[in-house]
This record gives sequence, C-alpha cells and structure tokens, in this order.
Amino acid sequence: MELTQKQIDDFHEQGWLFLPELFGPEEVALMKREAESIYSEHRPEVWREKNGAPRTAFAAHTYNETFRILGSHPRLVRPVEQIFGEQLYMHQFKINAKAAFTGEVWQWHQDYGTWKRDDGMPNPRAMNISVFLDEVMTINGPLLLVPKSHNAGDLKAGHDLETTSYPLWTLDNDTVTRLVDDGGIVAPTGKAGGVLMFHGNLVHGSSGNITPYPRKIVYLTLNAVSNHITKPTRPEFIAHQDFTPIEPVADDALVQHARSMKQAAE
Amino acid sequence: MELTQKQIDDFHEQGWLFLPELFGPEEVALMKREAESIYSEHRPEVWREKNGAPRTAFAAHTYNETFRILGSHPRLVRPVEQIFGEQLYMHQFKINAKAAFTGEVWQWHQDYGTWKRDDGMPNPRAMNISVFLDEVMTINGPLLLVPKSHNAGDLKAGHDLETTSYPLWTLDNDTVTRLVDDGGIVAPTGKAGGVLMFHGNLVHGSSGNITPYPRKIVYLTLNAVSNHITKPTRPEFIAHQDFTPIEPVADDALVQHARSMKQAAE
Repeated sequence: MELTQKQIDDFHEQGWLFLPELFGPEEVALMKREAESIYSEHRPEVWREKNGAPRTAFAAHTYNETFRILGSHPRLVRPVEQIFGEQLYMHQFKINAKAAFTGEVWQWHQDYGTWKRDDGMPNPRAMNISVFLDEVMTINGPLLLVPKSHNAGDLKAGHDLETTSYPLWTLDNDTVTRLVDDGGIVAPTGKAGGVLMFHGNLVHGSSGNITPYPRKIVYLTLNAVSNHITKPTRPEFIAHQDFTPIEPVADDALVQHARSMKQAAE
Repeated sequence: MELTQKQIDDFHEQGWLFLPELFGPEEVALMKREAESIYSEHRPEVWREKNGAPRTAFAAHTYNETFRILGSHPRLVRPVEQIFGEQLYMHQFKINAKAAFTGEVWQWHQDYGTWKRDDGMPNPRAMNISVFLDEVMTINGPLLLVPKSHNAGDLKAGHDLETTSYPLWTLDNDTVTRLVDDGGIVAPTGKAGGVLMFHGNLVHGSSGNITPYPRKIVYLTLNAVSNHITKPTRPEFIAHQDFTPIEPVADDALVQHARSMKQAAE
C-alpha cells in the first residue's frame, strides 16, 4: 500500500483523501462483530450518549486483538509514514458509533485544537484516519469536511461542554461560514471498508443520525514520533503516552485472525 | 400545469412526487425576501427554536400578499385537484426555516396522524406540498421520506413534547425500521423553486442542520373540501376552519406581484 504522487498532492491541497473499500468484507465483518462486542461492555473506555446508546469506545487497540492488528495495519500506517516522512505512534484510537436513530451531532471543530490545548502536541503532524465499519451514506450522519480549511492554522475555539456528552473545542459560526465560502463542504460516502484520511487542522463535524442505519467508524490518530505530546491532561486511554514507533503487521493479518477465530469457534 | 398519468401513477405507488424548479428565480427571490421579513416579526404565528432562531411561521397566506398568492397558485392547486378529483381548501400553511447551524431535527412521523388526532380530519385526503425557498442539499437537513409507507395506514404514534419546540406525534423505532426495510429512504434534493408533494400518511422526518446553508421550505397542506376537519383543537392559525374552495390565481401572479413591488420601491 503506497500513495501515488497525485494522492499526496491532493491531500496537501484539499486536506483529505478517501480510499474506497481499502478493507474487504471478511475484514469488515470481523471488525463490526468486535466493535459491537466492545460496545456491550461496561468499562471506562466506553462512553455513551445521553440516552445510554454507545457513542465512543476508546483505546480498543489495547484490549482487543482485532483492533490491536488494525492499529498496526500497513494499509493505514504506510501512507501516513509517506506523508510525514517518519515513524508513527498511536495518539488516540476510538470507535465512534453514531447509533441508528439516536446518534448525536458533532459540532464543527479541528482535532488539533484539542490535541494542542489538552495534550500539549507541538505541531499538527498527526493524521486522522477513519475506517468505515458500516456504509456511510448522505443520510446517516456522514462526516462533513471543509476542504482546504487545514491551511487556516489553529483557529480560535470555545469549549463546548453542553451540546453532547463529549467535551469539544468548537468553532464559531462566522469562522465556519468564512471557511465554507472558500472551500465548500464535502461528505465522503462509501461502503464499509472505506478509509478517509484527513489533516489534524481540517474543520469537520457531523449531523445527528435519525435513520435506522448505524454508522460505526474507527478513528485512529497516528502522530509522528518526533511530535509526541508533552503536557497530557487527559486519561491515558484518551491521549496515549506510549510513544513507541508502530511496527506494521502483515497485510493479511486481519484476515488470518478472522480465520483463526472461526476455526477456534468450530 | 397538469400532471401526466405517469406522475400520478408514481405518486400512488411511491407516495411522493418531486417537480424540480417549478418556480423561477424571480418568484423564489420574492418569496425568500418575504419569508425573512416574516421571521423578523414577533407575532404568535412565528415559532422559534430553543435558541430563538425561527423554526416555523404559520398562516403567512393570511397576512402576507406574496404567500396569499402562493396559497392559491395553480401550479400547486391544479395537480392536487387532479389527484383528489375535487376542489381544495387550505388546511395548514407554514414556512419552516431549518436555520443554518441551529436547525433542529423533526422526528419520524406521519402528518395525517396529527390532522386526525388533533383536528378531526376524517380521511388522509390532504396533500403536503413543500416549496423549496433555498437549495435543498444532502447536507443541510433535507426531508427524508420512506417511500411506500403511505400504504401502511394510520400508525400508532406517541406524543413527543420534549425533543424540540414543536409537539409531534412520532413513530417508534421498530415501526420505522420495518417500513425502511421495505421502502428505503429517499432525500429529494434540488434548487430553490422545486416542489415536493407527498401523501399525508407518508412517513418522513429530517435531521438537524449544522451547515451555514439555511433550508427554508414553505409547506402547504391542501385538503379536499369534502374532507374538512370536524373537531379542531388547535388554534385557527395552525388548523384552518375556513373551508372555502380555493380559486386559483393567474399563473404569472407571483411574477406580476414581484414587479409591482419593485416599481413601488423605485
């Protein structure tokens, strides 16, 4: 898995890159099963909406073998190494549910704003990677991105502690309007197994989900090792402090794991 | 303006019909201006979101000349007369804002459920007509329809008084899932001036709007005169009790009105 020069240029210009169906049906089925299993657990890493539906499961790569493999997967790690030109560690890992009927909004924000303010990350040299576990459609609360907004730098933000159950540094309406006037809004959609990479300063948000279609996404934040955080204030399971460079697993590691689990069950 | 037999058949099968750009730019510009002007008024017919942004302006056809004309417009009245085979009166008229950034959700519901329970409407022989005053996109909270659900009859519903500032008889998740399994979900989108007609029993809802793009829609509910309501419990400006048949205006009445307003302003 290697990005083409065109893909790299696109990423630098637009701030995002979509790779459709990077994972196959067998890999997706395994990850979906394991995500559901994690959501059913009651543990501090699993956060819920106000109504009790799962919203986010943090750090699943530290307690689940499937997601341990995903967190070191070469199809995710190699492209980001290409872009940053160095090795990476896992800054954050979460599985966002955007549950059917009840998935709540994420207000407009830049992720680097939080990494800088709450974790002391020196530069926006960390990449967001979202792996679709369900089909992302226009109607089930897709991620909305503002192309080119990654060039706007670290924007002034307010700490929203009220809108949803997750505290977030969010942008004001005038700022969002200005950036959207320039770059528009895109909502990358695609089948389960697709992968969306976007810059730490890219402005994004998502609407709620009132449809019967859930929209689970795994988010990895891969940070350049030289850019490791310096002033962590959040729990270790939200902003990791293990800066060991990731050694990618074999490309077929998820498939092999799915088959070994199947064999064990038979 | 007359529907083709194919359009009438489609309506009966799917429960909805979309007529793109039925009104032209001059007519749309007039209606947008007048809607904004109404939203800025403080009167009992103008309802607001929890944050004060406009949500709905009722009965504008009774106090605004532009919307009086729209409420008797042949491009809206004639097609519905074709479908019901008789003359119509205005059961409800509202301008829904779905404001930029703050527009709230409408949970899944059938409109006839409310007309029957709250107004005593004998049969679902009233038509919803939505006239787009802004471009409706996939990202700014389009109306979501469940095709074919108009055949499900009058479904059991619960009175939701909490989710938003507007009381609504809403459907439970199992019912919506069952209907969506059968008919899917469509989100008709299009430029301002488009018109969407849908059956009083068609299940529909809409997500919130977090984008900078407002999404104003005029909703007319045209009821067959013989089907007039019998047990009104809501204010006259929400469920009208004037059952006089609508006599359509001239097809160019909105354009003429726009020009006369422009002349008067010069």
